[in-house]
Amino acid sequence: MNKSTIKYILEALENGEMKADDALVRLQDLPYTDIGHTKIDNHRSLRNGYPEVIYGEHKTTQQVVDIFQAMRKKHSNILATRVSEEMAVGISSFCPTIVHNSVARTLFFEYEPLPETPSSIVIVTAGTADLPVAEEAKVTARALGNRVNMIADVGVAGIHRLFACMDSIRLARVVIVIAGMEGALASVIAGLVEIPVIAVPTSVGYGASFGGLSALLAMLTSCANGVTVVNIDNGFGAAFAASQINHLNL
Amino acid sequence: MNKSTIKYILEALENGEMKADDALVRLQDLPYTDIGHTKIDNHRSLRNGYPEVIYGEHKTTQQVVDIFQAMRKKHSNILATRVSEEMAVGISSFCPTIVHNSVARTLFFEYEPLPETPSSIVIVTAGTADLPVAEEAKVTARALGNRVNMIADVGVAGIHRLFACMDSIRLARVVIVIAGMEGALASVIAGLVEIPVIAVPTSVGYGASFGGLSALLAMLTSCANGVTVVNIDNGFGAAFAASQINHLNL
Amino acid sequence: MNKSTIKYILEALENGEMKADDALVRLQDLPYTDIGHTKIDNHRSLRNGYPEVIYGEHKTTQQVVDIFQAMRKKHSNILATRVSEEMAVGISSFCPTIVHNSVARTLFFEYEPLPETPSSIVIVTAGTADLPVAEEAKVTARALGNRVNMIADVGVAGIHRLFACMDSIRLARVVIVIAGMEGALASVIAGLVEIPVIAVPTSVGYGASFGGLSALLAMLTSCANGVTVVNIDNGFGAAFAASQINHLNL
Amino acid sequence: MNKSTIKYILEALENGEMKADDALVRLQDLPYTDIGHTKIDNHRSLRNGYPEVIYGEHKTTQQVVDIFQAMRKKHSNILATRVSEEMAVGISSFCPTIVHNSVARTLFFEYEPLPETPSSIVIVTAGTADLPVAEEAKVTARALGNRVNMIADVGVAGIHRLFACMDSIRLARVVIVIAGMEGALASVIAGLVEIPVIAVPTSVGYGASFGGLSALLAMLTSCANGVTVVNIDNGFGAAFAASQINHLNL
Amino acid sequence: MNKSTIKYILEALENGEMKADDALVRLQDLPYTDIGHTKIDNHRSLRNGYPEVIYGEHKTTQQVVDIFQAMRKKHSNILATRVSEEMAVGISSFCPTIVHNSVARTLFFEYEPLPETPSSIVIVTAGTADLPVAEEAKVTARALGNRVNMIADVGVAGIHRLFACMDSIRLARVVIVIAGMEGALASVIAGLVEIPVIAVPTSVGYGASFGGLSALLAMLTSCANGVTVVNIDNGFGAAFAASQINHLNL
Amino acid sequence: MNKSTIKYILEALENGEMKADDALVRLQDLPYTDIGHTKIDNHRSLRNGYPEVIYGEHKTTQQVVDIFQAMRKKHSNILATRVSEEMAVGISSFCPTIVHNSVARTLFFEYEPLPETPSSIVIVTAGTADLPVAEEAKVTARALGNRVNMIADVGVAGIHRLFACMDSIRLARVVIVIAGMEGALASVIAGLVEIPVIAVPTSVGYGASFGGLSALLAMLTSCANGVTVVNIDNGFGAAFAASQINHLNL
Amino acid sequence: MNKSTIKYILEALENGEMKADDALVRLQDLPYTDIGHTKIDNHRSLRNGYPEVIYGEHKTTQQVVDIFQAMRKKHSNILATRVSEEMAVGISSFCPTIVHNSVARTLFFEYEPLPETPSSIVIVTAGTADLPVAEEAKVTARALGNRVNMIADVGVAGIHRLFACMDSIRLARVVIVIAGMEGALASVIAGLVEIPVIAVPTSVGYGASFGGLSALLAMLTSCANGVTVVNIDNGFGAAFAASQINHLNL
Amino acid sequence: MNKSTIKYILEALENGEMKADDALVRLQDLPYTDIGHTKIDNHRSLRNGYPEVIYGEHKTTQQVVDIFQAMRKKHSNILATRVSEEMAVGISSFCPTIVHNSVARTLFFEYEPLPETPSSIVIVTAGTADLPVAEEAKVTARALGNRVNMIADVGVAGIHRLFACMDSIRLARVVIVIAGMEGALASVIAGLVEIPVIAVPTSVGYGASFGGLSALLAMLTSCANGVTVVNIDNGFGAAFAASQINHLNL
Repeated sequence: MNKSTIKYILEALENGEMKADDALVRLQDLPYTDIGHTKIDNHRSLRNGYPEVIYGEHKTTQQVVDIFQAMRKKHSNILATRVSEEMAVGISSFCPTIVHNSVARTLFFEYEPLPETPSSIVIVTAGTADLPVAEEAKVTARALGNRVNMIADVGVAGIHRLFACMDSIRLARVVIVIAGMEGALASVIAGLVEIPVIAVPTSVGYGASFGGLSALLAMLTSCANGVTVVNIDNGFGAAFAASQINHLNL
Repeated sequence: MNKSTIKYILEALENGEMKADDALVRLQDLPYTDIGHTKIDNHRSLRNGYPEVIYGEHKTTQQVVDIFQAMRKKHSNILATRVSEEMAVGISSFCPTIVHNSVARTLFFEYEPLPETPSSIVIVTAGTADLPVAEEAKVTARALGNRVNMIADVGVAGIHRLFACMDSIRLARVVIVIAGMEGALASVIAGLVEIPVIAVPTSVGYGASFGGLSALLAMLTSCANGVTVVNIDNGFGAAFAASQINHLNL
Repeated sequence: MNKSTIKYILEALENGEMKADDALVRLQDLPYTDIGHTKIDNHRSLRNGYPEVIYGEHKTTQQVVDIFQAMRKKHSNILATRVSEEMAVGISSFCPTIVHNSVARTLFFEYEPLPETPSSIVIVTAGTADLPVAEEAKVTARALGNRVNMIADVGVAGIHRLFACMDSIRLARVVIVIAGMEGALASVIAGLVEIPVIAVPTSVGYGASFGGLSALLAMLTSCANGVTVVNIDNGFGAAFAASQINHLNL
Repeated sequence: MNKSTIKYILEALENGEMKADDALVRLQDLPYTDIGHTKIDNHRSLRNGYPEVIYGEHKTTQQVVDIFQAMRKKHSNILATRVSEEMAVGISSFCPTIVHNSVARTLFFEYEPLPETPSSIVIVTAGTADLPVAEEAKVTARALGNRVNMIADVGVAGIHRLFACMDSIRLARVVIVIAGMEGALASVIAGLVEIPVIAVPTSVGYGASFGGLSALLAMLTSCANGVTVVNIDNGFGAAFAASQINHLNL
Repeated sequence: MNKSTIKYILEALENGEMKADDALVRLQDLPYTDIGHTKIDNHRSLRNGYPEVIYGEHKTTQQVVDIFQAMRKKHSNILATRVSEEMAVGISSFCPTIVHNSVARTLFFEYEPLPETPSSIVIVTAGTADLPVAEEAKVTARALGNRVNMIADVGVAGIHRLFACMDSIRLARVVIVIAGMEGALASVIAGLVEIPVIAVPTSVGYGASFGGLSALLAMLTSCANGVTVVNIDNGFGAAFAASQINHLNL
Repeated sequence: MNKSTIKYILEALENGEMKADDALVRLQDLPYTDIGHTKIDNHRSLRNGYPEVIYGEHKTTQQVVDIFQAMRKKHSNILATRVSEEMAVGISSFCPTIVHNSVARTLFFEYEPLPETPSSIVIVTAGTADLPVAEEAKVTARALGNRVNMIADVGVAGIHRLFACMDSIRLARVVIVIAGMEGALASVIAGLVEIPVIAVPTSVGYGASFGGLSALLAMLTSCANGVTVVNIDNGFGAAFAASQINHLNL
Repeated sequence: MNKSTIKYILEALENGEMKADDALVRLQDLPYTDIGHTKIDNHRSLRNGYPEVIYGEHKTTQQVVDIFQAMRKKHSNILATRVSEEMAVGISSFCPTIVHNSVARTLFFEYEPLPETPSSIVIVTAGTADLPVAEEAKVTARALGNRVNMIADVGVAGIHRLFACMDSIRLARVVIVIAGMEGALASVIAGLVEIPVIAVPTSVGYGASFGGLSALLAMLTSCANGVTVVNIDNGFGAAFAASQINHLNL
Repeated sequence: MNKSTIKYILEALENGEMKADDALVRLQDLPYTDIGHTKIDNHRSLRNGYPEVIYGEHKTTQQVVDIFQAMRKKHSNILATRVSEEMAVGISSFCPTIVHNSVARTLFFEYEPLPETPSSIVIVTAGTADLPVAEEAKVTARALGNRVNMIADVGVAGIHRLFACMDSIRLARVVIVIAGMEGALASVIAGLVEIPVIAVPTSVGYGASFGGLSALLAMLTSCANGVTVVNIDNGFGAAFAASQINHLNL
């Protein structure tokens, strides 16, 4: 149940096109749907601007299927991240129109396309190996109704590759910078643009990368202004925050 | 040298009101001013939307004075953060109109007020002890031309205090959440709003707070969507990012 | 051998219903039973109020089987945690009445039901993915004779779900809060109740969760009063402590 | 404003001894008192069973004085922890009846003594150097209305000292174990008692103690059942939790 | 080549029973045997009192086989630790008299039994799960010629089990204490004995055990005197050091 | 495209042997080749003295194949590190002359041999288990045109093995020291030579080695002068730096 | 009360030279003396071979004075470590024969000299800056009745200094190696001797030394056999363990 | 005693200008001078190419004075780093020609100027606050006979400042990059040059910089090839390594 649905119900009530009792029935499940192991937050699109997103990791396939089916009854778009191959196969078997992106590890069921934003989010990666995180961000940002542009493999070891792309980056309303190892790309880009920079450290690297810790600390201590940071490998979170920014004042 | 100054020079050149040579002289120091220990980035307001800000920590008083004086020749507003009492006294002695905020540890010299944004940034703190970081954020955000609202001491131990303020928070375009200890406030607020949330962990706490590490990790792993994070105690950085967001499409 | 058995022996001795020699034989194995790789602490129910619990992890299946069989000769209830599927199959093959909970990874052999406490323990989880830890806590608490109520998936990202359950939580004598990621739920609940709060950080999350470290640190540094914390994923330990509290003055 | 005051108001209203308007005036400040830098949570004794406690660290003396004076107007008992010498002098100057404990670093203003619990809390320390933390716990527990017994310096290096005190420990309803270095005392005591054990790691030690981390980790991973843990040096938190347990079913 | 062999050569030379040239040939490989990937330190028994021990981990099976065969040509006893099943099968196939201990993960080829020490090393474990480390220590200590006594599963959760064994422990010349989780057993034993205590932290435990870190830090910060510590799970190292102590002044 | 090719083009242009348009076509892809997931930095040999090296880890086999094929069109030597068996099989199937070193996990396609340096790099390892890292260094150094000498297994536990090799070490122009565990070899060698020492910590070891952290910290804090350090297990990086040094002034 | 005193009492009793009642009075304070803040472990010399040692850090001067005076009544030698200047002045004022070593930060009151061991402990330091830790070890070892030899500043950066001293080192019965920075000296010495090596990491160093962590980890992961380790800067603990070894079979 | 002195002695001996006995006397102190607390390594200039450098931290002023005076008798140049103001005053009082650099915290006594290298070392800093580390590097490099060029404050937040200096950087034979915070400058420069890059992380920054850890990890995990790293704030070490490189084949 999204904002426009709720607005429609309230207007229908106001206009006498719907009776109070009927409106009540349709609105009463607003708080959440309790399916035992999970309390689905139907309210979230009202508070956060988008329905709850299913986080697949640490859940069983059966739990994800249950949540998916309960949400589908609400006629909302459904995005699931960190899904296993088993989950993708399981849900596709009864919902063949769902889109599975195996690089991003996402499932997306689009009940109703959202209007696309006129402004865009640009996703920039330091290396080829950062692509799974970038794909998660891209799928998420698009599911949330954003125009998205992706620029891959412009890490600072060959900084001329970045400069060749700066004009495209500056065209966006917000930039997501995805980098592992030492994560220097976030600082370099933030020093060159006026738009908000959301940095995503990735677990790409070895040894003293400590699973993405080096990039995380580097991005948090960036000498450039305006860098904000999300969790390691959190392409979804970066895209969600970028979408909030990209939807301001539309 | 800010954007409007540069625009003025270029228009004057275009209109024949200024000669190319004179324009050249005025523009030639654009890249940076080298004063030995420091290369002042005069170009930054063009790239990042605001002049370089002086970071006082780890610098000597003499270095900060030198940078301040070099910047003042460019007729720009000058913000310095993390300044010591000695720096404040030193600069005030020859520039009495500078404003020193001893809680925020900032100095601000306003050559020309920036136009204030119609929309606002709201700064929320979990506790009284987070105020120095909040003040740094407030001074920074105002120096960057933003309307600012501050709400103090609404941590989750008495969550009704937060709920009483949610309406004011939702009126803003972006919210900065400042919290030490376990930093739970960022997650709670992010679960309740549609606007971007920038979280600032503080070093308030002891023992297993490890100088702000607990709040930092908590904010990075928030279960709520849309939280981005800056460095521990980095009120300046949060305000800078918030200002970039608040200035989008104005 | 539990407290009432020992009391019975001593009274029988006192009343002349049992001879000293017979009492001696029955009491002599009190300290422990040595089965080579393990010294089973038969004394524990006297000191700690409950027989030794078998911790399956890091043990071989054969060792767990040996301990189980030695304990069964003492006619006590037997709880085993962190058991593998192989252990469950192995023990069930010769003790078909044992109950295996594969989510909780527990085995429970109930020789004699304990009286159920009139007051209850409530177990609250932040997310669906915390359920294995919650199940371990539930099985443990019930094995120790407690009434248990479980409330799942009320994390702070949708805090209205929690408020809808606060009345049930306040009915309990002690609350176990189980949460991964940033673990904020413990602080929020502790700010709202008068009863003791035992917090269990879980390893749910990724990146800067560092295997549950972020939730652990957050719970230890909670701004709310009265939160005590157990090890990451330690549903058993939380339930044991909660049971001690729930059995006070019964 | 404590529970009995509120009950009195409501009963007076019920009995016609007080008018609704008057009751309203007295109740209306329930939520919190906003004094600018701080929002005092007057509601807390209703939710948590005790008024808000002032945490002095990271606050200025002026802020603590302001909070103290605002709370005194509510006629509640007032406890402040982690107060500096300056704060103690400042508040004593206008409130001479306040009790300052310089070892515990507490201030306590007792408007009305709470009834003392029949059962007691026992506080046990491993070494002499743990006494400041133990004192904070003792002052807190007494302020919250508990009978308290303290046993100092029974660390495991001379374990016979502990055994000589086990009978006194077993008489209590809950035990607080305070230890630095390797914190082994918590495990040893928890293996010997049936009552809840709250462990407080202290920063006593050097080198690989890492400011209390070794004791913290040791207590969290105790091989004995029923140990719950609070933050390093958090005597207050341990006493608060112990008091909640000690007040159950009184 | 051990000490007595060398002494024999030198005496034979002295007595004219061996010619200088022959002695030279026999002594010339003293420094080391270079087999490409490895330089076998034939000199070690002279310097350290025992031939080089083969550490199997991180090596390939072929490398271990090569080293074993090169050492066998020197007619020394050969001990290998951390060997895989594959290595055990490989070496047993051509050296059937080698003894493989699959719990300890050791191989031992005894060319010539060492004289057994009159005094003994006692190995004490906190739990059943510590046995693989204890077995490695036992095999090593015996290979080095020590009498060994093992006492398993006397952790502090049931401390009476330990007291029942203290007399056997005091009979030894040195004690190795092996414990995971919080490692408290080392402190308790060290507080009760006069002999040297070598503590081995194990990786037994989960969550805040962090792979043995909690036990390691606890043992390093023991409040009892005389505890020295080796690496996590290093049963071999503890036994080697204990053997050096046990061989003093024999 | 390497330096001599570019020099050839420019000279041909100068001499009139090539037309500007043709030169342009050959030079125009200098910056990089964009193959979607990757932007190959053709420019690198000009800036860094050697073509981009393919880092196989975190990439898919298909991505590595794509990059390899794109690079082959530029007629440069191609080195790939951290390649899986699958990648080696995949590329060998269509490029049979490629050399796969399965210990080093490298692939090397030599289009044109580089001239070998007169001076050499010496690679020294502390143990047999460090050989995979040493092999990566050796393959890299040779691919970059260096004479290489390898000395294995001279760790400080048998320091006479090192002294026997010191003369060979001093003959080199730069030394790479590879060691896990406590990494002491780097300090000992650096105390004995005048040439630059590049230290590579390896993840060989267990427990408190923490995946190479102990060796890394030890090498960074070496008491000997002149030690510089690369990432854990980074044989490639050490060889690259050594090659830069070895090619100075040739 | 030391062993010989107790033996004297028991023999006097046996010989009829002392009455049972008198013996009782003299023995009855064996367990401990309770002076409020501290329970002095008079029993310790019986269990551990030496009276309790006063650890001054984290204690107040008054507490140390109280403990000292209570111990003096027992006529035992008294050693205090980590004493402040204030403590030294305080105790010297009423006990002028006490010896204060301000480098070692120790106080030693010798009631009765212990017999000196025929064999010795050798203390070796890597650098001049490790001397305070070495002095603490020396004072402790001598107070415990050991012959001690000290060799300073033979770190591996100039390894020939060590070799010149190896003969003196081999003469000892046990060696204490004290080193900060990368702590390599412990491995090098352990590779060269047959006697037990106790390693003491020191906090000497900066940056990645992390207060002695680098040396600690290095010593724990030593590639040489037989190294055991104590806490950072723990000269006392090393000397205590060394003394236990040095007193075996005397 | 430096290389040329030793060569002179040997030649004099060869030519009959000096007698063997006299040569012996002059050479016999080669190994080291033992002044009690310190063994001065007179041999070092022969092995490492430069006399021992005095590291002032953790030493007393008296110790530094003693070492200085002992070295002065050998007529060598003397460099001391990390000296306190007290040390500088103390040594200057009897050796007025010594040069004290209070920013670098160095003392340098030049007995005989070394020949200056034709090639140079360039030192680049990211920010003004990195200057003390850069000064230590500069003083060290010059003392070791190198030409040095310093470029300050070209961090990546204003990357055009760096590009303006790239030509000067490329003129050097080796570059030292000094940066705190996220240390990105090392990666950017290494991506642009062919010469060796030695990176020095500094402790400049706060919060998640963790005393230089973020820059250290970032530099170790640089995506650019050829970066080697020294300890945090170790300007001396970087300069020493750079000097070794700069002196190759001169």
